[in-house]
Amino acid sequence: MTRSPLSPTPRTTLGRSPDRATSDRTALDAVLDVGLTCHLGVLPTGHTAPMVLPTGYGRDGDTLYLHGSTGATSLRAAASGVPVCVTVTLVDGVVYARSVFHFSMNYRSAVVYGQAKAVTDPAAKSHGLRVITEHLAPGSWSHAREPNKKELAATSVLALDLTEASVKVRGGPPKDDEADVAAGVAWAGVLPLHQRWGQPEPCPLLPSDAEIPEHVTARPQPGIAKPAKEI
Amino acid sequence: MTRSPLSPTPRTTLGRSPDRATSDRTALDAVLDVGLTCHLGVLPTGHTAPMVLPTGYGRDGDTLYLHGSTGATSLRAAASGVPVCVTVTLVDGVVYARSVFHFSMNYRSAVVYGQAKAVTDPAAKSHGLRVITEHLAPGSWSHAREPNKKELAATSVLALDLTEASVKVRGGPPKDDEADVAAGVAWAGVLPLHQRWGQPEPCPLLPSDAEIPEHVTARPQPGIAKPAKEI
Repeated sequence: MTRSPLSPTPRTTLGRSPDRATSDRTALDAVLDVGLTCHLGVLPTGHTAPMVLPTGYGRDGDTLYLHGSTGATSLRAAASGVPVCVTVTLVDGVVYARSVFHFSMNYRSAVVYGQAKAVTDPAAKSHGLRVITEHLAPGSWSHAREPNKKELAATSVLALDLTEASVKVRGGPPKDDEADVAAGVAWAGVLPLHQRWGQPEPCPLLPSDAEIPEHVTARPQPGIAKPAKEI
Repeated sequence: MTRSPLSPTPRTTLGRSPDRATSDRTALDAVLDVGLTCHLGVLPTGHTAPMVLPTGYGRDGDTLYLHGSTGATSLRAAASGVPVCVTVTLVDGVVYARSVFHFSMNYRSAVVYGQAKAVTDPAAKSHGLRVITEHLAPGSWSHAREPNKKELAATSVLALDLTEASVKVRGGPPKDDEADVAAGVAWAGVLPLHQRWGQPEPCPLLPSDAEIPEHVTARPQPGIAKPAKEI
């Protein structure tokens, strides 16, 4: 599948630290594919404040699929076609600087704007759920029982075009003032943050000799995709 | 400092999975104190979609402090007094179920609503920055150079009351349909996700014999606060 280039718009053109921004589509995909959850921001009709809620997602080509219960206010609002913002953030480390002012985080974040569409066609909905399931737990769609009609009806699947988005990446050491570096006022550096899978914890209702399948035991560690180059 | 109880309002009374909700103030503090970044949601005047951006924060008693550049659109909008939503999410694991429908994540999330106030008094601003710095990098405020007047002026510090908030926690094994459990259709269980600090990476501009201070080398692992009890 070909990938659309990103179309910079005023809200995806970063005002702050534009040196950390990229409109590179590959960088966007890298962040989206490595994250586990997104934060969906939406202003439901009649609300005064946006809702920002952690939400499951998955990417297929130029489409970001989101899902949740059909009863969730945030999903219902997003499905109604009001504009949404979807943000995926990966924290890579804490940046200790010589001055408090230059403390920072190393991170990769993707921000996508658009209007989501409810996916209602059963085959398309099933495809969206497959993408989301394989994002959350690769290898699971063919291993677990697929959704039945009742379950499909109780699940809301939304599709969002990846055409208006921005990516911001900070990497590397602190950027201190020269005077502070020369004076050696404090230690400075990065404390990297890693995510690691622990040992699988089988459901207590399984037979005690149930074998843990390879798609669980051999799941690659999260967040290990090479950080996008800071530009 | 005493802690205010949470005041349930319609937007903090969960419609979905109310069994996962708690209005326990201790549970709120536990999530906020363990998270590293929040997602700030705000609808700037004239925008059609909310902005959702990763933002640094720290908690002191009943106040959540946020900070960023004075030039950031999201911070400027939040400082103007429009309603905001601040969400902190900790992902604890992936829940593999016997059916795709019951796949889930184990997580702890806190959602805070309110109107933020810009902190402008120099002493109060310095206090807020200290809270945020000590949250991000404990032990750093007394180690690094404190902000000077120019740096203070270039930093926006916002204060948000922790009175309207909700906490949602999912823990434990998958909740499958009895028929799927009985039929043994698939493996099921939890793949825990842990965050771990890596080895500190000293700034290349430091002398090669610079000692790494204890507040960095002995920093407790993140996210290890006992998960709040699912109620």
